[in-house]
Amino acid sequence: MKARRLIHEADVVVYDRLVSNDILELARREAKFISVGKKGFGLAVSQQDINAHLVKEALQGSLVVRLKGGDACMFGRLDEELEAAAAAGIGSEVVPGITAASAAAATLQVSLTRRNRNSSITFLTAHDAKGFAEHEWQHLVRSGQSLAVYMGRKAATFLQGRLLMHGADRGLPVTCIENISLPAQRAFVSDLMGF
Amino acid sequence: MKARRLIHEADVVVYDRLVSNDILELARREAKFISVGKKGFGLAVSQQDINAHLVKEALQGSLVVRLKGGDACMFGRLDEELEAAAAAGIGSEVVPGITAASAAAATLQVSLTRRNRNSSITFLTAHDAKGFAEHEWQHLVRSGQSLAVYMGRKAATFLQGRLLMHGADRGLPVTCIENISLPAQRAFVSDLMGF
Repeated sequence: MKARRLIHEADVVVYDRLVSNDILELARREAKFISVGKKGFGLAVSQQDINAHLVKEALQGSLVVRLKGGDACMFGRLDEELEAAAAAGIGSEVVPGITAASAAAATLQVSLTRRNRNSSITFLTAHDAKGFAEHEWQHLVRSGQSLAVYMGRKAATFLQGRLLMHGADRGLPVTCIENISLPAQRAFVSDLMGF
Repeated sequence: MKARRLIHEADVVVYDRLVSNDILELARREAKFISVGKKGFGLAVSQQDINAHLVKEALQGSLVVRLKGGDACMFGRLDEELEAAAAAGIGSEVVPGITAASAAAATLQVSLTRRNRNSSITFLTAHDAKGFAEHEWQHLVRSGQSLAVYMGRKAATFLQGRLLMHGADRGLPVTCIENISLPAQRAFVSDLMGF
């Protein structure tokens, strides 16, 4: 359990809102905790400031652990933080996590893929640097694959409109989940018209 | 760490080839170990036989842990095993895992998504129940998204041909990885012509 060991050894823990107290408690009490919580659109702390925190603490000789919910490789701006560290001559190690779609599928006891149903799944973000994110909706609707939409809450009406406009069935099954694996977890199963 | 606790409590552990000894050693010595290792195409033990093992052991009152490498929700035939259990009146719980693409991205220190580069990624299997799996190659090539191809080794030439035929750039960066996170892990970075 490399993640557990690193958190315990950390001098500084820089963490997101999605990190639960159970995880934070794996760190030593004397560690320095820096919250850079993200809330809905945008960041409570800008990405630039997060990068600056990481670099500043590491350059002071501290072992810095950057804690994120889910998997940092997926819609997690990992590259930007790694590049900031590298530019300052700081070495990094990345520990993979369980991405939200996997956690959701496990909770719901369904597969994201299934033989003879879908042999692919697309993970997409509902908003990007420019706002609501455009995707090749027509293809996504027709492909018969599953979609895992990240950060879809505020974009729900946008997503519904785009999918319907490109021919998605009104009864397309949709499951909405927030705070997966956290105490505040909520999920409801619906369809494209009802969510 | 629910996974760790369940493995320790298991009376029976039914495991794949991709599960390392470090993980198996979390189980009690007196547990019954059943290997249903998958190798390349097809199964060393058929899916039907795996299902039968799970049901038989659970009906005898044992706590059965089904251990798979990666995330069972992703190309893991989870549904088939859950349905077999449910049909026999056996309750199940699913613990999510880290899927191979996340493990690979962490090892390579790259993101699977990146702002202003790709706001989606498709996970696909290179072979399905019928053999090499067909996908909407033209869309995949043009979409600008990343692809995470699972079980691609034996399909490498097929994949290369399909992507080139649909207009992929010969210099498309390709990273091939096998046995990710296991001692036998191998990775090489290449391009579409060289892999």
